[in-house]
Amino acid sequence: MNTTPPIPPVDGQVSPRYAGLTSFARLPRLNDAPDYDIAVVGVPFDTGVTFRPGARFGPGAIREASRLLRPYNPALDVAPFDSVQVVDAGDVDCNPFDITTALTEIEAGISGLIAGGKRVMVLGGDHTIALASLRALHREHGPVALVHFDAHLDTWGPYFDTPVTHGTPFRVAIEEGLLLKEHSAHVGIRGSLYSADDLTDDAELGFTIVHAREFHTTPFLDIIARISERIGDAPLYISIDIDVLDPAHAPGTGTPEAGGLTSRELLELLRGLRDKNVVGADVVEVAPAYDHASITAVAAAHCAYDLVSIMSERMTEEIDGR
Amino acid sequence: MNTTPPIPPVDGQVSPRYAGLTSFARLPRLNDAPDYDIAVVGVPFDTGVTFRPGARFGPGAIREASRLLRPYNPALDVAPFDSVQVVDAGDVDCNPFDITTALTEIEAGISGLIAGGKRVMVLGGDHTIALASLRALHREHGPVALVHFDAHLDTWGPYFDTPVTHGTPFRVAIEEGLLLKEHSAHVGIRGSLYSADDLTDDAELGFTIVHAREFHTTPFLDIIARISERIGDAPLYISIDIDVLDPAHAPGTGTPEAGGLTSRELLELLRGLRDKNVVGADVVEVAPAYDHASITAVAAAHCAYDLVSIMSERMTEEIDGR
Amino acid sequence: MNTTPPIPPVDGQVSPRYAGLTSFARLPRLNDAPDYDIAVVGVPFDTGVTFRPGARFGPGAIREASRLLRPYNPALDVAPFDSVQVVDAGDVDCNPFDITTALTEIEAGISGLIAGGKRVMVLGGDHTIALASLRALHREHGPVALVHFDAHLDTWGPYFDTPVTHGTPFRVAIEEGLLLKEHSAHVGIRGSLYSADDLTDDAELGFTIVHAREFHTTPFLDIIARISERIGDAPLYISIDIDVLDPAHAPGTGTPEAGGLTSRELLELLRGLRDKNVVGADVVEVAPAYDHASITAVAAAHCAYDLVSIMSERMTEEIDGR
Amino acid sequence: MNTTPPIPPVDGQVSPRYAGLTSFARLPRLNDAPDYDIAVVGVPFDTGVTFRPGARFGPGAIREASRLLRPYNPALDVAPFDSVQVVDAGDVDCNPFDITTALTEIEAGISGLIAGGKRVMVLGGDHTIALASLRALHREHGPVALVHFDAHLDTWGPYFDTPVTHGTPFRVAIEEGLLLKEHSAHVGIRGSLYSADDLTDDAELGFTIVHAREFHTTPFLDIIARISERIGDAPLYISIDIDVLDPAHAPGTGTPEAGGLTSRELLELLRGLRDKNVVGADVVEVAPAYDHASITAVAAAHCAYDLVSIMSERMTEEIDGR
Amino acid sequence: MNTTPPIPPVDGQVSPRYAGLTSFARLPRLNDAPDYDIAVVGVPFDTGVTFRPGARFGPGAIREASRLLRPYNPALDVAPFDSVQVVDAGDVDCNPFDITTALTEIEAGISGLIAGGKRVMVLGGDHTIALASLRALHREHGPVALVHFDAHLDTWGPYFDTPVTHGTPFRVAIEEGLLLKEHSAHVGIRGSLYSADDLTDDAELGFTIVHAREFHTTPFLDIIARISERIGDAPLYISIDIDVLDPAHAPGTGTPEAGGLTSRELLELLRGLRDKNVVGADVVEVAPAYDHASITAVAAAHCAYDLVSIMSERMTEEIDGR
Amino acid sequence: MNTTPPIPPVDGQVSPRYAGLTSFARLPRLNDAPDYDIAVVGVPFDTGVTFRPGARFGPGAIREASRLLRPYNPALDVAPFDSVQVVDAGDVDCNPFDITTALTEIEAGISGLIAGGKRVMVLGGDHTIALASLRALHREHGPVALVHFDAHLDTWGPYFDTPVTHGTPFRVAIEEGLLLKEHSAHVGIRGSLYSADDLTDDAELGFTIVHAREFHTTPFLDIIARISERIGDAPLYISIDIDVLDPAHAPGTGTPEAGGLTSRELLELLRGLRDKNVVGADVVEVAPAYDHASITAVAAAHCAYDLVSIMSERMTEEIDGR
Repeated sequence: MNTTPPIPPVDGQVSPRYAGLTSFARLPRLNDAPDYDIAVVGVPFDTGVTFRPGARFGPGAIREASRLLRPYNPALDVAPFDSVQVVDAGDVDCNPFDITTALTEIEAGISGLIAGGKRVMVLGGDHTIALASLRALHREHGPVALVHFDAHLDTWGPYFDTPVTHGTPFRVAIEEGLLLKEHSAHVGIRGSLYSADDLTDDAELGFTIVHAREFHTTPFLDIIARISERIGDAPLYISIDIDVLDPAHAPGTGTPEAGGLTSRELLELLRGLRDKNVVGADVVEVAPAYDHASITAVAAAHCAYDLVSIMSERMTEEIDGR
Repeated sequence: MNTTPPIPPVDGQVSPRYAGLTSFARLPRLNDAPDYDIAVVGVPFDTGVTFRPGARFGPGAIREASRLLRPYNPALDVAPFDSVQVVDAGDVDCNPFDITTALTEIEAGISGLIAGGKRVMVLGGDHTIALASLRALHREHGPVALVHFDAHLDTWGPYFDTPVTHGTPFRVAIEEGLLLKEHSAHVGIRGSLYSADDLTDDAELGFTIVHAREFHTTPFLDIIARISERIGDAPLYISIDIDVLDPAHAPGTGTPEAGGLTSRELLELLRGLRDKNVVGADVVEVAPAYDHASITAVAAAHCAYDLVSIMSERMTEEIDGR
Repeated sequence: MNTTPPIPPVDGQVSPRYAGLTSFARLPRLNDAPDYDIAVVGVPFDTGVTFRPGARFGPGAIREASRLLRPYNPALDVAPFDSVQVVDAGDVDCNPFDITTALTEIEAGISGLIAGGKRVMVLGGDHTIALASLRALHREHGPVALVHFDAHLDTWGPYFDTPVTHGTPFRVAIEEGLLLKEHSAHVGIRGSLYSADDLTDDAELGFTIVHAREFHTTPFLDIIARISERIGDAPLYISIDIDVLDPAHAPGTGTPEAGGLTSRELLELLRGLRDKNVVGADVVEVAPAYDHASITAVAAAHCAYDLVSIMSERMTEEIDGR
Repeated sequence: MNTTPPIPPVDGQVSPRYAGLTSFARLPRLNDAPDYDIAVVGVPFDTGVTFRPGARFGPGAIREASRLLRPYNPALDVAPFDSVQVVDAGDVDCNPFDITTALTEIEAGISGLIAGGKRVMVLGGDHTIALASLRALHREHGPVALVHFDAHLDTWGPYFDTPVTHGTPFRVAIEEGLLLKEHSAHVGIRGSLYSADDLTDDAELGFTIVHAREFHTTPFLDIIARISERIGDAPLYISIDIDVLDPAHAPGTGTPEAGGLTSRELLELLRGLRDKNVVGADVVEVAPAYDHASITAVAAAHCAYDLVSIMSERMTEEIDGR
Repeated sequence: MNTTPPIPPVDGQVSPRYAGLTSFARLPRLNDAPDYDIAVVGVPFDTGVTFRPGARFGPGAIREASRLLRPYNPALDVAPFDSVQVVDAGDVDCNPFDITTALTEIEAGISGLIAGGKRVMVLGGDHTIALASLRALHREHGPVALVHFDAHLDTWGPYFDTPVTHGTPFRVAIEEGLLLKEHSAHVGIRGSLYSADDLTDDAELGFTIVHAREFHTTPFLDIIARISERIGDAPLYISIDIDVLDPAHAPGTGTPEAGGLTSRELLELLRGLRDKNVVGADVVEVAPAYDHASITAVAAAHCAYDLVSIMSERMTEEIDGR
Repeated sequence: MNTTPPIPPVDGQVSPRYAGLTSFARLPRLNDAPDYDIAVVGVPFDTGVTFRPGARFGPGAIREASRLLRPYNPALDVAPFDSVQVVDAGDVDCNPFDITTALTEIEAGISGLIAGGKRVMVLGGDHTIALASLRALHREHGPVALVHFDAHLDTWGPYFDTPVTHGTPFRVAIEEGLLLKEHSAHVGIRGSLYSADDLTDDAELGFTIVHAREFHTTPFLDIIARISERIGDAPLYISIDIDVLDPAHAPGTGTPEAGGLTSRELLELLRGLRDKNVVGADVVEVAPAYDHASITAVAAAHCAYDLVSIMSERMTEEIDGR
């Protein structure tokens, strides 16, 4: 944990926000601030997708959209880059042709970043990479709680004889003991399934579900309370498949499903988890070739910003508490 | 009503969902399953439009977007293709230059498909075609109830001396006695009108209106109850002009009006009608040249899927009840 | 105030709505109806932007989108063009390279249009131009109340040594005494800030804020009541930065922020101000190069239409009251 | 023929080229300069199309793109608006549902514009409208020569029992005696046909063809010479279907065919006809919904500009010669 | 070889070209005409790409664009569907996660289609699939000549330890003895390379190159003659990576390189090979997510049409010659 | 001039070309290789434009497109990064509101980069910035020759009382004595002008013009020879306004003009200048908001790559010659 004041993002009064080489929120690159607390890292991998590919360009698009982020987060009353050092760690290089090899590379990359209690904000890439994140986190923290925002359960079984794809990470994570079952939830689920067994299988794995439909009939704060209670005090991983948003809010994704959340709902849900111990997070499945005016990337960048803010606040408390 | 098990959609575990020749939800084509219960049929006609044309490409776009549909519908707990045979009947060929001729052709096409109590899910095309559907249904069922989702009333009078256009189908339908006035409703109405008479004329025709504005002040379940009560037990036709959705959710349409419904609201409204006797339905006015990332077509495909699910559930009950 | 019946918009039954040279809502041009009551005027200026430029093409895009507007507004039960003369005054010519010069030109242009109690509906252009509008209105009305719909406060200080940009108009307006502090409000604020001081500075200037987040927890009518109470009976300027809408509803803008309002919410908020004395209004920051299927321009055109309707209703009452 | 100096286009040094209400090349509207020599007129009609509709929005898009045109044409060394009065006559209103009615309306509109030897530059609209133009010209000039730039012959027979569509204008024109067979040519023809008879039928009608393929093997100036010789001194109508351009140069059109001309080739071909007596011209089939960055509309606007320049030069000579 | 007259494409006079379920050129599906001569088949595979993915949607996009194809090819004076039976064989199902498995599946699929001397027109998919085609053809014909249109050599070595990707098919094909070295050529090569060795390695493999640059200085017919001479009388496979076209003509592809061919040049080059014994062909690397107005897909469809025409002409001669 | 081997671009065999933080051609950043020979630098400035803004996002878009560049340039048989150190120097920060201030900042930025004989490749930004480049070069080299590729002359006078805009840089450069008149040329000029004086004024300033039209009638190599002869042995600045390309090849620009060059022509023209002493260069006016599939940015990136290759070759010779 560094003690000198963090290197701040590029000052928008010196260099216009559209100028300069790109990094997340115009933060310093890892090699310019090696003594960091939170690393934002891209994982440009999309070989695990089953429909539209293209999320390999997600990290770059989210970074471009993050140029609009300023250093103070009024929704949480936090200046996330002020008290801890946040850096852009670039992208993890990983094999585009072999999922197993890639997972190993991604796990190694993330493990290296979080060693010693550092936190990580992963920019995907497809949802396959969440498994690598969870494996890395498990080494550091043991099993973690999970809040998983998504249209899809992602607890399906093998697809075309391939055990790990973007439809399976949380099944495998449960099977590998990476998650605290009783403290995990899917939020925003909707759309058609292969069979009713998909739901019962998922329940057997230990998950609870907040369906997208429930937002019409359940008061918003009740939903937040329900998720919060589920998580409790466990170390938490938050995984956001951007398709949890309605296609109106996130056209740039691989498997869109009508009837999703608004970006305002998603951001408020995240803020409802501010008192949790978020040890890592991802936002995945941004496929820029299908995006328009970068609205999907903007939504993803704002999610990442709120997640970093939450992590920063907790780390600051930890530092102050010592 | 066939007795052998229905031919299912193409299996996504054998053929990836992006592969193979296109049919709605990857269902068999009519000539591969001639003994069907519900036919999905396209009507690529847009000569009745008054602003942006292009809905002639709607059926194709909806079919492409429907590749993402899986066989189990969790929102309704129905596997719509399991107990009855659903097929893609292709497109009705109709004259692109003469509305009257086209209406005759479309009516004949739909009449052929629904003979003997089969149900039909029509993919438009512009809203003119709803008149042909209602004429066909009238032959089979007599007057029917109508739930009409739209930004516009579509009960206007002749336009440029042409009595039937996409602005007039429900006026003409009333005049021809095709509808049960007391059991019909418009939902989602908004936007500017030619004069206050448009509303009084519509009321005189017998319709009731749920304005889009009401969604801000009326509890959602109350709106559903109000529509449901209006319909009662009558045989029901559901007609969805995709512009009932806000332009954010349905950019790909011909006469967009700000202030519309979300796709989540629309899908929930449809599900609120699950216990009705839906004898036919359409989703129209998808104009792909104005769509982006297929989000309009995805919304339309999901609507069609829920409508087929509702029809399938009812037909299964009818079969089981015999 | 003219006494002959107003010249109406082009009749959609004579000339299809997609036909003819473009003017706002197909209204007569100013030189065809010089004795007007309300002028719609474009200000194609975007030199004050700090991120994406392009709002110079906003007036043209909004006019094109306004072809869909019809002469009766059912949400307000007003036919805004029937009792007063509304015209399209074209665009104010202004210097693209020098903000100070341009502000002078814009102020002069608007002053000329509103002399003698006429009202103005300004189509931007970037938000810098609101300062010119307020200066012009101040000459006619003295200080006015302000309802400012925006994601951003626009009360920041100089940027790159330039005192007036699209981030500063309302700070300068307060400093110049153009606004009634106690009767002014920002609505829809969200997104990251430079520091917590941005909020306290804004409060010190006298504004109140309705944050976008509050729409999740505060009943809609309560928000309207709160804004309405704030305004009271003061002459009112309404300024709409289209980025108050969520990027899903307004992709075509310069500094998008996730978590915004829907177009339905914004229109209802405007309608909640129908009993106010709106003396002028603007809708700004429509950047067509980032728009899709004109959805941003459609939303802006509908806002302008509702604002003109509100102004028309008040002017009609004033005429009738004399 | 007016004797006062023509009213020039809006001065780009006074009003930036992106500002002001739109007219072709920022020229005065007809009612602002009723004593004109050449009228540019839109015909927003696309009911005659057989594939992608949308050319009804062509006139508006071409006008927007024409903002970039300046008053001096260096390729022809002509200032086309200096010596004769060119105006924008707006759009002809025509029935969107009935081709026959529309043709009558369009013919009447164009006849009115060209009475007394004035010339007309028609902005389409689909190619059906060329028949109306030719009928109008025939009244004024008798049969005319034709240079027809297109991927398609447009001498097909009835389609869906409709005798006049965008595939038939020149067959009907020959049948009605509107054209000088021996002085007419198609240029840029390519793509698949229904049968070899299409070519022999066309030859029997009297046309000659310059195939797009020939541009690879025939020197460019030889092609121009061949066309020029064919036309001779006859009064000439030039009809440009923008799909004569390769889809790379004209994506925004209804029936694209690979292997077309470049915009540079097309402009040079037009310039090769500068010494002809062009009495009228059209540029059609611009479908903006399929365009990108307005490149199709820009190409069409430049073609119209060169055609107006050629007509202007000839009219100036006629004036000077008197 | 069938003896009954072939089943023709859907008649555009009965069913408009935009109507009906999609197949290539509206041809019958394989199971509707099992006794075929030439099969058009899609291979929706893009796991071998090294930059932009998305070619898995290529077959569908090319089919949609092929709706515009009519049954007579005037450039070759051939009616390709008249004398032999051409069918759309749908797509080969192949594993999206494992290149080796997929290649086996694709080879099997194509082998099945060409058994007994039938010909195949493959719609990709990325260029990896050419290796599977060549393996299948080798079983039927032994080594074949190759004309390879591409910006890239595709004779690179392993990438990320993967021996077969879209950058390697022709190296591997040479190594496996599938090609007649002395009768193979690359055409359209351009863009940057990893090192000068790329060229010498390619030469050592036996290929000759026609660089894109040469089109500026070498007469077009000389280039055709040079390619034609190289091929001689060998059975020929033609492989078209659509990126051989300039990005202006083919934006919808994965690794665009400026300075490419026009669609007119490419089509003429193909026609220059009409007297060759083309036993199979592919057109690959169409990535629709990057396409605009389907211009890339239109170019690809026209290429496939000319290739089918050439194959059809040869097969007709073979039939007649017996 | 450094003596250690240059730091190469990121290896595409280690990190896929779509991965990692962006720099031009994946080259090292300046602070990672401070002892450089050639600097690539962005100037995100577009306040000088007169029509469509947006070129401020040009440097970022060109860098993204440059990911596809590999280290060996076969057209020139040069490996430009092997023998000299090329770096990405990031962007020059400059004032977005004041052209004069910005020019000073840009000149200072570029002067700093080229001190001591280093060369610079500038990525714009609008064409205004060329004046700053020329001022900086003049300090280092005295007056230079100019080859200016553009649709427009850019020797116009003040616009809206502003002496330096994107329409004036080369007039001002002549007036300031920055250019060798007799060794300067415009290439690709076309489109309409304000008056014939534009051409005579330009000639009086000393320029020669190669019009775009000439490419139809003058052999390509003759054009190159003519330009080459004009330049002679003078130190040369090459300035490329990307609108020299036809809109088909460069839709993403601010003032498109039909009838332009192809990307193949432009690249070959550049290569024809390989033996010149290029001391600096720019490629400007890439406006990504109007681009599609990055084709404009790809063309610009390839131009920059060829220019860097030419500069690298010369510098290598200079090093070797010492």
